[in-house]
Amino acid sequence: MRQSENQFEDKVVILGVGLIGGSIAAAIRQRYPDCQVVGIGRSEARLQAAMAAGLLTDWATEFTAELLGQRAIVVVCLPVHLIAEQVCTLAELCGDRVLITDAGSVKAEICSGIGQSEKASRRFVGSHPIAGGEQGGFEYADADLFEGKVCVVCDPPEKHEILAANVKRVSQFWRLLGCEITRMSAEEHDRVLALTSHLPHVIAAATTAAVGEENLRLTGSGFRDTTRIAAGSSSLWKAILAGNRRNVIAAIHRAEEALQEYRTALDQQDDDLVESLLERAAKCRSRLD
Amino acid sequence: MRQSENQFEDKVVILGVGLIGGSIAAAIRQRYPDCQVVGIGRSEARLQAAMAAGLLTDWATEFTAELLGQRAIVVVCLPVHLIAEQVCTLAELCGDRVLITDAGSVKAEICSGIGQSEKASRRFVGSHPIAGGEQGGFEYADADLFEGKVCVVCDPPEKHEILAANVKRVSQFWRLLGCEITRMSAEEHDRVLALTSHLPHVIAAATTAAVGEENLRLTGSGFRDTTRIAAGSSSLWKAILAGNRRNVIAAIHRAEEALQEYRTALDQQDDDLVESLLERAAKCRSRLD
Repeated sequence: MRQSENQFEDKVVILGVGLIGGSIAAAIRQRYPDCQVVGIGRSEARLQAAMAAGLLTDWATEFTAELLGQRAIVVVCLPVHLIAEQVCTLAELCGDRVLITDAGSVKAEICSGIGQSEKASRRFVGSHPIAGGEQGGFEYADADLFEGKVCVVCDPPEKHEILAANVKRVSQFWRLLGCEITRMSAEEHDRVLALTSHLPHVIAAATTAAVGEENLRLTGSGFRDTTRIAAGSSSLWKAILAGNRRNVIAAIHRAEEALQEYRTALDQQDDDLVESLLERAAKCRSRLD
Repeated sequence: MRQSENQFEDKVVILGVGLIGGSIAAAIRQRYPDCQVVGIGRSEARLQAAMAAGLLTDWATEFTAELLGQRAIVVVCLPVHLIAEQVCTLAELCGDRVLITDAGSVKAEICSGIGQSEKASRRFVGSHPIAGGEQGGFEYADADLFEGKVCVVCDPPEKHEILAANVKRVSQFWRLLGCEITRMSAEEHDRVLALTSHLPHVIAAATTAAVGEENLRLTGSGFRDTTRIAAGSSSLWKAILAGNRRNVIAAIHRAEEALQEYRTALDQQDDDLVESLLERAAKCRSRLD
């Protein structure tokens, strides 16, 4: 019954067919046309449209044990504050070979919420593919969104043969969609992502506020780049920031200190220090290109 | 002798053939092939290469009155801390119909430096085309760099018929390269650009520092966009920040306050305030797209 290393799932159920859920669907449809891709959502019209767009092979507005079948992966692509509860509900319907994962930008709160239910814990592996965009909705779905991107797969809270097998299966799922897998604890994920993802969002929004609408006319490509992600969904980001509160607060504080360093150096006319700070940042940033 | 509204200059002399100087040259060569484009710089090899790339019709490593001729526009495309002195030196060689402008990102310090020389004041108009990129060097020159971009042209320090005519001529120069002209005082320029351009650079660099090299692997497109300009030249930016010191300090302070607002709201679990701050920023930012 064991699937080979490169064999994809037969069935994937996507809860929440937005940008991420839609892109997972698109990637599967393009790469593994034999795989069933079932979308679950609240709006029949949206699901029908996603099916018409070729993203889904089936859809439903409610979960049933029949819909899940014998073997499937369920990917919960909902706002982060809704994930844990949905996973716990879902787990009640799942057979032995149905596995649940997610794509949420915070992990510790979700994993600890799921840890409350033994059934859910045995079937859930936390994931976070680091990919996305400012635009929501499956209309922006991109079959190559995950290509070459890092996907964090969370270490299970305890050592157990079944949990290790679950992690392996979920890792394979993301790898076959193009991701490079990185394993870490949910807590480590949240500490790092507060800096690498949640902070840049706050920075972009705060910079936009500091500049002000009245000055937009005199902005150039630097401002555009620096603040691009500020256009993202404020309700999604509210949930992400709240879901990683302590780490985000610490990250913002770190950015304030970094800014203060520039301000103090300028104030003290220590322009060589300004240059060396800029130089260090330029060197670090250039490693990404 | 008066040129018509849409007639371009016969000769443009570019001091400093880097990204901006090179792009001015490229734009002229593409649009006005009859115009002479003379590059001035320190390195013969670089100037020869720029000429071989088709950007220049002639080059020299030194200014002479002959080189300027009867009528020309000289565009000083040097780091901001070198501009005022160069303009004053140049002005001594200029005939009545040679005009000098620049492309520097700060204006008040330059204009007041030039104000010390009557000869220079009569021949100089400060400009700042809001266009650029992280990559320096004429190899990145782009004939369309100025297309649709705003160019600030500084109001002369006093009312005078000659100065008004100079402003008109320099405005026409940039307009014919594709710019949209905005007139303001050098002081107003510096106050606004501290927010719209200089602050984003500091923000990008400070964010890169706060995130740290050890976490780069878990960054996504949000971090990439937000910190892209941090890769720019630290020596150029040192001069810009120092050249607009008081305004940049105030702008950094404003950003720190905006960040603190998020941090405090998160700390007080006032997630509705976080959402409304994000919402306001998203709305403001989306006006740019």
